[in-house]
Amino acid sequence: MNSRLFRFCGGNTGLWRVTECRALHGQPLAAVTHLSILSGDTPDILAGAVWTLRGMVSNSRYTTRQELDRLNAVSPALGRVEATCAALIPIRKSAAWWALAQDERRAIVEERSHHIDIGLHYLPAVARRLHHCRDLGAEPFDFLTWFEFAPCDVKPFEELVSRLRETDEWSYVEREMDLRLTRSPG
Amino acid sequence: MNSRLFRFCGGNTGLWRVTECRALHGQPLAAVTHLSILSGDTPDILAGAVWTLRGMVSNSRYTTRQELDRLNAVSPALGRVEATCAALIPIRKSAAWWALAQDERRAIVEERSHHIDIGLHYLPAVARRLHHCRDLGAEPFDFLTWFEFAPCDVKPFEELVSRLRETDEWSYVEREMDLRLTRSPG
Repeated sequence: MNSRLFRFCGGNTGLWRVTECRALHGQPLAAVTHLSILSGDTPDILAGAVWTLRGMVSNSRYTTRQELDRLNAVSPALGRVEATCAALIPIRKSAAWWALAQDERRAIVEERSHHIDIGLHYLPAVARRLHHCRDLGAEPFDFLTWFEFAPCDVKPFEELVSRLRETDEWSYVEREMDLRLTRSPG
Repeated sequence: MNSRLFRFCGGNTGLWRVTECRALHGQPLAAVTHLSILSGDTPDILAGAVWTLRGMVSNSRYTTRQELDRLNAVSPALGRVEATCAALIPIRKSAAWWALAQDERRAIVEERSHHIDIGLHYLPAVARRLHHCRDLGAEPFDFLTWFEFAPCDVKPFEELVSRLRETDEWSYVEREMDLRLTRSPG
């Protein structure tokens, strides 16, 4: 059992109801009505899953100690009772991105795109968990980011993703889906 | 087929003959006489394999553009006819390592331990390929490094690994094996 591995299963059943499913770049995922999130690496296939995306929670790749401390101080846990809205944003970056050196990627992510700083601005409203897929092998995306927020924070969330999509970093995104979801309160 | 995934299969058959197998930190791997290296993610189990270690070639994590350019300029390919000696060094780092932020890990790797600079000193004699395992799930090591060199470069290679093991970075290594191997020329 690997507790850092998560599977996002789209189908006709699940805790989360899909309210919107858009392909922003590249090939779309098949439309589904519900999403289930499973943790651990048990080989079970979820009955009724139309697609399954796997991702691993990993160590931070760009964040400095100072940034990490600032993030940790205000980052809420997932699963808050009031956070009945969610988004799953799978992205794949280009070969050009992955050929960059560490300092070049860091400069694009933060010094030029302010990715970490923009994210901080929407904390603690928007809870977030990043999953890495690229090195699992045979996954269609490089990253899956899962967001949870209350209905009253839908507008700030839209602003957050809109600001990120205007950055230099996003010019390296060659496939992107945007799924919006809701669940019953409690 | 994922051409970045490699499997190192220890058993009683394979291109490489194991001449030495030492556990430097933590639990040893079972002793084997031969090693096979398979690429791709075909699910075949190699007949006779006593153990299989999987690792993914990935993007660089600490190297700057300047360092990467210097490395690329002098790094030989694997498979040189004269490089009949090899080493496989699987390591696992501690939870404390993985909890560090990117700038802290970079500072330990290079500014304090000179890992990249030490490696450069032994190029082009020692060819090297780094494989990441930690985010594959259920792998016993975090990294597998494969080295190839000619018999006349055994001594420089010993010096290389000895220098790395004296670094601050190595104080975070909690499991380490060192396998030495040879193959017939050609």
